Amino acid sequence: MKLLEERILRDGKIGAGDVLKVDCFVNHQIDVPFMNEVTKEFYRLFRDENVTKIVTIEASGIGIACLAATHFNVPVVFAKKTPTNNIFGDVYTAQVYSYTHERNYTVRISKEFLNSDDRVLIIDDFLAKGSALTALISLVQNAGATVVGAGIVIEKMYQNGGKIIRDSGIRVESLAKIRSMDENGIIFE
Amino acid sequence: MKLLEERILRDGKIGAGDVLKVDCFVNHQIDVPFMNEVTKEFYRLFRDENVTKIVTIEASGIGIACLAATHFNVPVVFAKKTPTNNIFGDVYTAQVYSYTHERNYTVRISKEFLNSDDRVLIIDDFLAKGSALTALISLVQNAGATVVGAGIVIEKMYQNGGKIIRDSGIRVESLAKIRSMDENGIIFE
Repeated sequence: MKLLEERILRDGKIGAGDVLKVDCFVNHQIDVPFMNEVTKEFYRLFRDENVTKIVTIEASGIGIACLAATHFNVPVVFAKKTPTNNIFGDVYTAQVYSYTHERNYTVRISKEFLNSDDRVLIIDDFLAKGSALTALISLVQNAGATVVGAGIVIEKMYQNGGKIIRDSGIRVESLAKIRSMDENGIIFE
Repeated sequence: MKLLEERILRDGKIGAGDVLKVDCFVNHQIDVPFMNEVTKEFYRLFRDENVTKIVTIEASGIGIACLAATHFNVPVVFAKKTPTNNIFGDVYTAQVYSYTHERNYTVRISKEFLNSDDRVLIIDDFLAKGSALTALISLVQNAGATVVGAGIVIEKMYQNGGKIIRDSGIRVESLAKIRSMDENGIIFE
């Protein structure tokens, strides 16, 4: 998506440890008018899939998922990272390894909010090694629901997460696909 | 706001420890079409305030803040609860006591995303004792920005957070104001 690639080239910063910093418009400050336009592309790609629900993971997926959901006119369910006394009842759980924080954590969704009739679009800001996305797919499939696909804002194609997930038969659509990234700049596919 | 009060009466559940569970439409599953309508009320209330930015706190504030931001056509900045190597540079910090998780934690916003020209609307899902809202006000004021007010989805009026913050001169607008809540039901102001 040209609009997004241009914005990444303009405002993205590359940090140590393969970090692409886009926190001025994606994941700390969210440029809502801009991301609202960007998320229309998810609707264009998945509008024939009869999506009934969007699933994402806290925290930085939530805003993007809610903007996308306004185009699909469906609810969002976000997987939680901390147990809370605000959830009563049974939950689906899955394990995620965070390379950012270098630890495993459990994510959970209340069973109440996923059922076998649901056709779920998974939305997230980043896809790299695929740990979070794999966990979300597992949560949705445990509920017997259908994963119609995953909509990702930025994918690091040189890591293997997207390939493994596509090879498993899941449709993954990434709006900006980074082929390589180093101190000389970013090259998109 | 009648629409919201009716939904709380229909779908809200009261749990032990003064918990109002609204996770089927506010803070785990987000009923985006419904909350999109609800957040238009924030725009009606604050549209003359020349809001330049909406500030909230992760995680459950983010979706509501992004929906509200589509009406104001401004960016959202969300205060983060965990340090991350995705933030370089200086941050504003404040302490929040979570009654839900029974511990203190630090919230932070990168200094890059708040400046003295900003006119900030703070958005959150709940206001009870006011710890999170007080921290967000302090973050914004540390940046020299103006807090034009706070827009809250549900306020527990019988706790004193809202009163203390209003007495300090901050405009607080809550869309559902709960006067009392127990096993017999919920009474709104």
